[in-house]
Amino acid sequence: MDYSADDHLYMQRALRLAEGATRRAAPNPGVGCVLVREGKVIGEGATLAVGSDHAEIQAIKDCLARGDSPRGATAYVTLEPCSHHGRTPPCAERLIAEGIDRVVAAMVDPYHEVAGRGIAMLQAAGISAAAGLMEPEARRVHRGFLSRVERGRPWVILKAAATLDGKTALLNGSSKWITGPQARLDVQRLRAAHCAILTGSGTVLADDPQLTVREVPVAVQPWRVVLDGDLRTDPSSRIYPGGRSVLATCVDDEARLAAFRAQGVEPLILGRRGGKADLAALLSRLGERGINELMVEAGAGLNGALLRAGLVDEIVLYLAPALAGDAACGLFSWPALEDLADKTRLEIVDVAKVGGDLRLNLRPQA
Amino acid sequence: MDYSADDHLYMQRALRLAEGATRRAAPNPGVGCVLVREGKVIGEGATLAVGSDHAEIQAIKDCLARGDSPRGATAYVTLEPCSHHGRTPPCAERLIAEGIDRVVAAMVDPYHEVAGRGIAMLQAAGISAAAGLMEPEARRVHRGFLSRVERGRPWVILKAAATLDGKTALLNGSSKWITGPQARLDVQRLRAAHCAILTGSGTVLADDPQLTVREVPVAVQPWRVVLDGDLRTDPSSRIYPGGRSVLATCVDDEARLAAFRAQGVEPLILGRRGGKADLAALLSRLGERGINELMVEAGAGLNGALLRAGLVDEIVLYLAPALAGDAACGLFSWPALEDLADKTRLEIVDVAKVGGDLRLNLRPQA
Repeated sequence: MDYSADDHLYMQRALRLAEGATRRAAPNPGVGCVLVREGKVIGEGATLAVGSDHAEIQAIKDCLARGDSPRGATAYVTLEPCSHHGRTPPCAERLIAEGIDRVVAAMVDPYHEVAGRGIAMLQAAGISAAAGLMEPEARRVHRGFLSRVERGRPWVILKAAATLDGKTALLNGSSKWITGPQARLDVQRLRAAHCAILTGSGTVLADDPQLTVREVPVAVQPWRVVLDGDLRTDPSSRIYPGGRSVLATCVDDEARLAAFRAQGVEPLILGRRGGKADLAALLSRLGERGINELMVEAGAGLNGALLRAGLVDEIVLYLAPALAGDAACGLFSWPALEDLADKTRLEIVDVAKVGGDLRLNLRPQA
Repeated sequence: MDYSADDHLYMQRALRLAEGATRRAAPNPGVGCVLVREGKVIGEGATLAVGSDHAEIQAIKDCLARGDSPRGATAYVTLEPCSHHGRTPPCAERLIAEGIDRVVAAMVDPYHEVAGRGIAMLQAAGISAAAGLMEPEARRVHRGFLSRVERGRPWVILKAAATLDGKTALLNGSSKWITGPQARLDVQRLRAAHCAILTGSGTVLADDPQLTVREVPVAVQPWRVVLDGDLRTDPSSRIYPGGRSVLATCVDDEARLAAFRAQGVEPLILGRRGGKADLAALLSRLGERGINELMVEAGAGLNGALLRAGLVDEIVLYLAPALAGDAACGLFSWPALEDLADKTRLEIVDVAKVGGDLRLNLRPQA
């Protein structure tokens, strides 16, 4: 299919709708859909929470609510319409039933129940349907869902805040207010966009954080996941009560876990790999739980282990314009390198001033 | 005196000329001068090396070489014309003799032999003369000379290169090629703009650097100053031969210093303060030697000591998009802080991409 400049503009609009739906739609993909007829948008929508409407149905309802009909329209969707009966009926069937003329999808849905069948179903009904317009942009928007479906684990963003000499805390544990208020608000927005926040036992013991979203409206708090292989944390830590918290541990001892369960915590038992909790297993278990996007807010130990295991997809690093000196806690811990060629290479994707601090968006390089 | 938009433009031109003359003029200020008559530049120049022409004389010669005469012109100078017989005759006298009509100086020369007498001499001769146009810009251009005259020490820039987690080298000493070729060329340009490069004995022992300017043309190599309080370095280190090197040490032992002198090294004997070489004394001794701008390229120990002593005016920090992990050498060393409020605060003056690396220009805050 050849795509016009208008096709790109409508798909861009659909992608923007998708961006706003990612969090609420999880574990489903937060899809965007725009209906266009004769150069006019006649309906648009994005995926609602699980069990409710997909984007296509929302767009059709929007069109009908405007007193119009989708008949003869082109549907721009950021992901192939579904072809299977899941929690909702197949969107492809509905598009056919409504007399849609053409379907432009940004990409095929890799989920095994769909995987091209949506496009095929539309084509079999005589609809002009294809996938591939702005696929890279759609892969970026749907990265969490795609990661879970294609790699069996969430998309992992590691957030860290440090002084310009790479220090996150003093040796006495003091770590509050490294960065300024704007950067801290930025972190709240980042948390709100994630299905779950992962931290380690060291951070819980040192800072006793809640890791909830504050200052930013959020329909549902992200899950809070504490990796505490040896069960060092206290069930009364502030991160556990309030529901939606998971304790990932290697200690499979129901008697000791009871105090955590009493706080509403869900235990997740992990095996060990090289003596340490199996991080790859942790991520795949979180994927099974429907976590599309995971944000890591941990100390140097867990940060370093995840990064060196190749389990970090992006780093958001806030650098405060200050120096703490060498005798302080660093960002990433792993055994001393023998050769600088073994350093972890990053790509600088973006640099921005956030208040008085710098925010760097980084991608680990293979 | 009221200044027009044209006055600002001509002064800006003089300041640009001054910027290019700073290094060659040292220990004199590298002044810029522009002669203008009836809206036309009729001559311009900047200070030559010590003992040769000041900017005003260069501009007058330029005017005469163009077949014109400075009579009736306005002279824009970035610093008050000198009034004393130093290595050259007073510029104020020459401006009077040439029949200059008006003199606009960016600032009064704080040097005790001038200090307003240049302006006064011109005014006494009936010339309209004043100082103060674009003084902040002129103070920036003349910062090295002003620092030496007003504070008795050079303007100090600390350059450092680290990974994004603040590491400058591995524990085994490996430190080559943290940053990419563009950043390293940038450092060469920075070196070329400085009168002297200061390093510490630790860096000489670990890296055996030359600290010369390469890849960039330079009339005279900067002085290389090694702070080696306890005389730990070897006279055969690569930094010592070739002339223009200074050994700053607390070991006042002519027998041990002889091997350094044999390499052409000039010893500079320092007292101790708190058991360590007196850094403030080192800087004032370098000021006495006519060093206007000093660049520090040292390890965490000397970096940290200079910074905590309030002896660093600017930091140029190159950050490579890589992580070395905690078990590596850091940027700044000082005793562990007890309170994050005691961290060294910086102002981010500029952030730029230099090749694949980031360059941050920073100012320590009081």
